[in-house]
Amino acid sequence: MSEAALAEEAAALDAADGLAAKRAEFDLDDGCVYLDGNSLGALPRGVADRIADVVGREWGRLRIRSWEESGWWTAPERVGDRIGRLVGAAPGQVVAGDSTSVNVFKAVVAAIRLTDTASRDEVLVDAATFPTDGYIAQSAARMTGCRVRAVDAADLAREAGPRTAVVLVNHVDYRTGRLHDLPGITAAVRAAGARTVWDLCHSAGALPVHLDADGADFAIGCTYKYLNGGPGAPAFLYVRRALQDRFDSPLPGWNSHADPFAMAPAYTPADGAVRGRVGTPEILALLALDAALDVWDGVDLAAVRAKSLALTDFFLRCVEAYVPQGRVESVTPEAHGERGSQVSLRCAAGPPGGDVMTELIRRGVVGDFRRPDILRFGFTPLYTRFADAERAARVLADVLEGVRG
Amino acid sequence: MSEAALAEEAAALDAADGLAAKRAEFDLDDGCVYLDGNSLGALPRGVADRIADVVGREWGRLRIRSWEESGWWTAPERVGDRIGRLVGAAPGQVVAGDSTSVNVFKAVVAAIRLTDTASRDEVLVDAATFPTDGYIAQSAARMTGCRVRAVDAADLAREAGPRTAVVLVNHVDYRTGRLHDLPGITAAVRAAGARTVWDLCHSAGALPVHLDADGADFAIGCTYKYLNGGPGAPAFLYVRRALQDRFDSPLPGWNSHADPFAMAPAYTPADGAVRGRVGTPEILALLALDAALDVWDGVDLAAVRAKSLALTDFFLRCVEAYVPQGRVESVTPEAHGERGSQVSLRCAAGPPGGDVMTELIRRGVVGDFRRPDILRFGFTPLYTRFADAERAARVLADVLEGVRG
Repeated sequence: MSEAALAEEAAALDAADGLAAKRAEFDLDDGCVYLDGNSLGALPRGVADRIADVVGREWGRLRIRSWEESGWWTAPERVGDRIGRLVGAAPGQVVAGDSTSVNVFKAVVAAIRLTDTASRDEVLVDAATFPTDGYIAQSAARMTGCRVRAVDAADLAREAGPRTAVVLVNHVDYRTGRLHDLPGITAAVRAAGARTVWDLCHSAGALPVHLDADGADFAIGCTYKYLNGGPGAPAFLYVRRALQDRFDSPLPGWNSHADPFAMAPAYTPADGAVRGRVGTPEILALLALDAALDVWDGVDLAAVRAKSLALTDFFLRCVEAYVPQGRVESVTPEAHGERGSQVSLRCAAGPPGGDVMTELIRRGVVGDFRRPDILRFGFTPLYTRFADAERAARVLADVLEGVRG
Repeated sequence: MSEAALAEEAAALDAADGLAAKRAEFDLDDGCVYLDGNSLGALPRGVADRIADVVGREWGRLRIRSWEESGWWTAPERVGDRIGRLVGAAPGQVVAGDSTSVNVFKAVVAAIRLTDTASRDEVLVDAATFPTDGYIAQSAARMTGCRVRAVDAADLAREAGPRTAVVLVNHVDYRTGRLHDLPGITAAVRAAGARTVWDLCHSAGALPVHLDADGADFAIGCTYKYLNGGPGAPAFLYVRRALQDRFDSPLPGWNSHADPFAMAPAYTPADGAVRGRVGTPEILALLALDAALDVWDGVDLAAVRAKSLALTDFFLRCVEAYVPQGRVESVTPEAHGERGSQVSLRCAAGPPGGDVMTELIRRGVVGDFRRPDILRFGFTPLYTRFADAERAARVLADVLEGVRG
């Protein structure tokens, strides 16, 4: 198809897009095509005013009183429940705070502690995991007398067995954008008598997740990608309600105590999601995230998913139309059921991928590069337009060929 | 002494105060005497503009580029070094991030791993510790085959013995304001062949600390009290340079990897303070803290300490002058060498302490209450005036007696 035809198609798709109005809620301009929301989500416009109020009034004027009067103390659960709605968790099971890595540690250790480690001493990790999950799983295993075995995600359901205590899986592969089968793997792991810990970093806010319905045991994820919570925004931890009474945290900080202000020498864990808390919550970051989550009010994740797939389909078509054969190949699955909300292109020939991305960014198309040869383009349905996808493919072709005539 | 004489003395002390000008750098007004900076420091005026720029420009406009262009990626070490100057640590040994509780876990586990746990399996914790330290020490001990023994802080130097792996001490007792002997305990613990972990929550920014000179092994602390970093601001971790090569973190997140963007399946720890990092840094909170630390530029901690002691001395004199005998008793040591930067008064008779504090706050004197009967008043030398101390004592007397004639 010609450039003109694709541009026209993009315009038609944008005109028909039921989520199009959402873009105005973000601080974006037409000078840049931002396709790195899978690394750092764009700024929701409401955040600046909210954080100015949190700093100037809540901290500056009310000071210590804000722990009660501004609801600071309960923010981790309150924000957690807002995230919960986006990942299929009924209220009272998600708590926001700490980094993803710290939450992986809590979840994996707690999952191991739910099993009899005399008979089950194996932590399965998907072999292509984002590195921190693997490193932290290793530490969790070392500290509980278990061992880690890396297995291709496609084989996890089959490999979970009588020695398996926990299976830690990335819902979407950060490098390739491959979506793993959450319901299927969860059911198989459960049938094998083990627990699942799902890493939702690249799926929360990108597509519907049904933690409760699919029977996931634990989940963790970050909030600075598709949830637009800001750089290093607090992560979250989901503990299935049925397991909360037995959730035995390796980080039993005072915020998870049943009566924290009793300042008791002995630890008595709180009930519910609060048990996943550790130290004093990072209020500024947490309330920036809270404000960022306002963009989700009234948003249907099914519509988000439909647009995401349409965007990535369309981008792939544009790439195929514009980029000469053989210069890049997509490593993101074509099948919708196996695709997250990003497209990863391997630079098969021509200039090194890192240089390609640098030039793309110079020309206003912002994705990112993952060694050794992957160009990543994230499609955030709330603010990415079909016209952006078309332009990105066009600029990519320009960069790969040298400027076209 | 009469009220008039004490008020006059306060005015003279304020007029002679070399730190008096610092108060203007904080968002404070004369309507309130804020004596809860030992729980949440007041807002430094520079924070609001800085955080507006971080949100609006660095995140909003530069987005992902800010990890490099705005120096986000190296903020934990950069901010860490600024804290380091205030606690006697040469550059390269302090990293900012995570909560205090999470850092206690890193430090205690790492300290245990530096010992031969076959012969040393004991973690000594001061018996009056802030609860989270004790809870987390218990978890660290449980996960490393050790046990925790609670010992009166005054006895720690003597009790550290051949079974002791680590001694975890609060530099200043959060309840009583008692300052423990960092050089003495550190030397004794070292002589016993064990390691120290110092909790500096109530001393960092309140008085001079000399971690390097005194030979401390590890230290942790929060930054939202005397360092005014904001509610739930990132904590910090100090690892003595000589131990950094052997620092074996139980939370080896990807940010502590020698080459994080290699995304390598195998963990290779970074050198130096970076090894204490875990996940993606909480940028908004970290840069609010960075801005808050500007108030320390050019400040001599010896002057801070001198004013702190003068303030607490003066407050105690005012309390003695105004409050009828027997209504409150100070549980904060009189000896300067044993006093932090707060005064804790036990309500010995009369209305319950919680009610007294509620009424104090209603009348514009903000301290806090710790069960069962302790009124805490924190004296932050950078912004507390002698006149504030006098007024606080006067209002306290009013509250305790009913309004005086």
